[in-house]
Amino acid sequence: MDFFFQPEGIAVIGASADEARVGHYILKNTIGGYRGRVYPVNPRYQTIMGLPCYPDVESVPGDFELAIYFIPARFLPETIRACAHKGVKGIIIESAGFAEVGHEGRRLQEEAVRLARELGIRLWGPNCMGLVDGYRRHVFSFLMNDQVFELLKPGCASFIVQSGMLSAGFMLMMLERGGIGISKMLSVGNKCDVNETELLEYLINDDSTGVIGMYIESIVEPLRFMELVRSTNKPVVVLKGGQSPQGARAAASHTASMAGNAEIMRHMFRQCGVIEVFDVNELMDFVRGFSKTCLLKGDSGTAIVTFSGGGGIITTDLLHARGLPVAELSPSSLKALEEVFPPWMAPAHPVDIWPAIEQNGYPKVYRRCIEIMMHDPNVDSLIVHLFASRMETSYLNGLVALKEECGKPVIAWCVGNGEKLKNFKRQLEDLGIPVFEEMVRGVDFLASFKKHCRRNRNLGRDER
Amino acid sequence: MDFFFQPEGIAVIGASADEARVGHYILKNTIGGYRGRVYPVNPRYQTIMGLPCYPDVESVPGDFELAIYFIPARFLPETIRACAHKGVKGIIIESAGFAEVGHEGRRLQEEAVRLARELGIRLWGPNCMGLVDGYRRHVFSFLMNDQVFELLKPGCASFIVQSGMLSAGFMLMMLERGGIGISKMLSVGNKCDVNETELLEYLINDDSTGVIGMYIESIVEPLRFMELVRSTNKPVVVLKGGQSPQGARAAASHTASMAGNAEIMRHMFRQCGVIEVFDVNELMDFVRGFSKTCLLKGDSGTAIVTFSGGGGIITTDLLHARGLPVAELSPSSLKALEEVFPPWMAPAHPVDIWPAIEQNGYPKVYRRCIEIMMHDPNVDSLIVHLFASRMETSYLNGLVALKEECGKPVIAWCVGNGEKLKNFKRQLEDLGIPVFEEMVRGVDFLASFKKHCRRNRNLGRDER
Repeated sequence: MDFFFQPEGIAVIGASADEARVGHYILKNTIGGYRGRVYPVNPRYQTIMGLPCYPDVESVPGDFELAIYFIPARFLPETIRACAHKGVKGIIIESAGFAEVGHEGRRLQEEAVRLARELGIRLWGPNCMGLVDGYRRHVFSFLMNDQVFELLKPGCASFIVQSGMLSAGFMLMMLERGGIGISKMLSVGNKCDVNETELLEYLINDDSTGVIGMYIESIVEPLRFMELVRSTNKPVVVLKGGQSPQGARAAASHTASMAGNAEIMRHMFRQCGVIEVFDVNELMDFVRGFSKTCLLKGDSGTAIVTFSGGGGIITTDLLHARGLPVAELSPSSLKALEEVFPPWMAPAHPVDIWPAIEQNGYPKVYRRCIEIMMHDPNVDSLIVHLFASRMETSYLNGLVALKEECGKPVIAWCVGNGEKLKNFKRQLEDLGIPVFEEMVRGVDFLASFKKHCRRNRNLGRDER
Repeated sequence: MDFFFQPEGIAVIGASADEARVGHYILKNTIGGYRGRVYPVNPRYQTIMGLPCYPDVESVPGDFELAIYFIPARFLPETIRACAHKGVKGIIIESAGFAEVGHEGRRLQEEAVRLARELGIRLWGPNCMGLVDGYRRHVFSFLMNDQVFELLKPGCASFIVQSGMLSAGFMLMMLERGGIGISKMLSVGNKCDVNETELLEYLINDDSTGVIGMYIESIVEPLRFMELVRSTNKPVVVLKGGQSPQGARAAASHTASMAGNAEIMRHMFRQCGVIEVFDVNELMDFVRGFSKTCLLKGDSGTAIVTFSGGGGIITTDLLHARGLPVAELSPSSLKALEEVFPPWMAPAHPVDIWPAIEQNGYPKVYRRCIEIMMHDPNVDSLIVHLFASRMETSYLNGLVALKEECGKPVIAWCVGNGEKLKNFKRQLEDLGIPVFEEMVRGVDFLASFKKHCRRNRNLGRDER
């Protein structure tokens, strides 16, 4: 599969000089990050973006391992034949018009697969948005956004997605929000040859991938898929589309997927340790969370440090509702908290620090309270509520080392306004603290995180 | 209770010229919108913000109906006595240091209540942030934000909250996000006299309130509360803090509330038609949704119009999971959709319009598809997915009339980036279409909305 990720030479079939066309963006994105030879192919142009353009695959002077295909579906078989002569190993087919549009398209897709197998070429797609590699800065995709290279940060999160929305609009939203680094973003479309299970295996073996998120409408090889998830200590977060009868019917016309029996699928997911989610933001939030959280050494309870009595109570209720134990702080922690608390207020849990802040200032109180929580043996994880109008986060700098040392994940919930809030969140996430927009999402994530760590521990595996 | 909302004269006891102090903001906010006489009271100043300042209540030359109290707790009894001489009808006590801090504070609070009852004065709070009235532009609160009058828009949403965070930080976040107009925002704190049940009754009888959201840690008069909710066709959305044992303990030290038995409470809520939520954003989202949605005439199924196959499938699955019927479009609608669909793609539900958009453009396709859905007898409500980079929303202008005429609520889920997305959402919400950040929240809201409408219908009431 490596030739898809780091090919020797790429032809962009259907490259265009016209900025309104998708073929323009595919070429622009490809040359934007890829450092090897790129050959635009289109009979209508002599050159595009300063590169010589060739009328057809046969005319390309050099060999190339990868072709990106964006011309009408019907030309695929002849293109595969021509590519075989150029030593092509893989074709990413980003055009639509195959099995998802009915009988004729399905026939064409099947013919292409047969031919490619014969000629030793792997097919990716069709009806997909290709792949993005955050470390190599490869964007073999028609993402129509000029800021994509600016926004793309490398990191340990990888995705396999079976929807244009997720790989395009949603990926951009996620990148714009920040706080997540991408290893691979793989859009698989109809999965006529390369499928989600094969890519899952690739990502499990990929050292730069630490957590895998998936939106999929079918699982082509369910037993192998299950075995792979079972075999890895990496979290695999899955949003499975087509779980309702009407959703399954829609999946058939979207990516020609057979959604499978939802009950069986869910049972299978639970068995092998898939972390299942049900909405797009939940998928992103969980993957972002897993990409930042550290070890979980203990298994006692979650502590809450908050600037808001009400917020602390709501979070406590949510922990309880999700079956997560709420920490009972040790007497020595309660004693230590007295240092920063006003004399009229006895420290208690959840730790409501507003009165302490009024007396001792924001940075000191937060730093000290967090330290105390991190060293309390009755605390295995920490939720902090923060107020973004106090921009200064230097008091949190020691936290990264502390959470690694103590093996306690820290997650945050923030209030605040506009740009201030946005920048504040980024600062926190650069420190390795995932921030959740809603308390309930943070608690749901923490429940999944603890479950995943327990599973790895039970299987005698490293926690990451 | 009207004297709290439109008093004849106000004294601000503890007003300050020092911009770092809470007493500064209380005065600034009060004179920022209130058009009657305002008397700052503080022995340390001759004038504040151009107003003569008086050393004590006795020295105030005129009478006043309302006092806002922000000096240390221990002065409350003598202040109540002094206020009685000035014809004061109500005191909003924004200081803390009462029942929430222990025995001594509780004694003081009880003494104040006894005295106020004797002297015919109503007490609001203590330990609260006062009240905001969006129509009258009254901000009798220490909200420390200079933009509050700019952000505050009048509308039919009212809140009763028992947490500083909700009434301050969170209200500001909600206003900054936009899309919601406020009738009343009432922060009740320890509820030593005026309580949530009394205010609920006030809001039920308040013509400018259409939907009521509450964050409460206790219900002082549960039977009356239940009767009130049962008696009104206005939606009452409640986030109840202190439902877990540890949360209840925290509520006792936050606002001295006895949280009550969570099981009984929940049962009671279901019985009388309370719409229960479990997180702060959920509370805001639901109230915002109810403040916009129109009648629900039918009871068939929900239609989905989307730019994303994957998005349509996920939303379909979510509807199914929440027990909401997914619309089966009538044959004539499917026929009509053919107008805008490309010939190779048969219209189906969910209506994935991406290929149609590529052929016929965004505005035409959205407008036509929505019209068709709104007139289909098999559709009782509509979820639209929109892409905010196409800024133009004029194609949606007819929608307001259409949704009223057809009695079908329309809710939206949007993707897009930064300011563009923010403005796009505002435009939609100005058109009366609530936008949800997450599909799952929109579906949850729709489920509550339909349930609420059915309940009103079963009780033979107007739907709003």
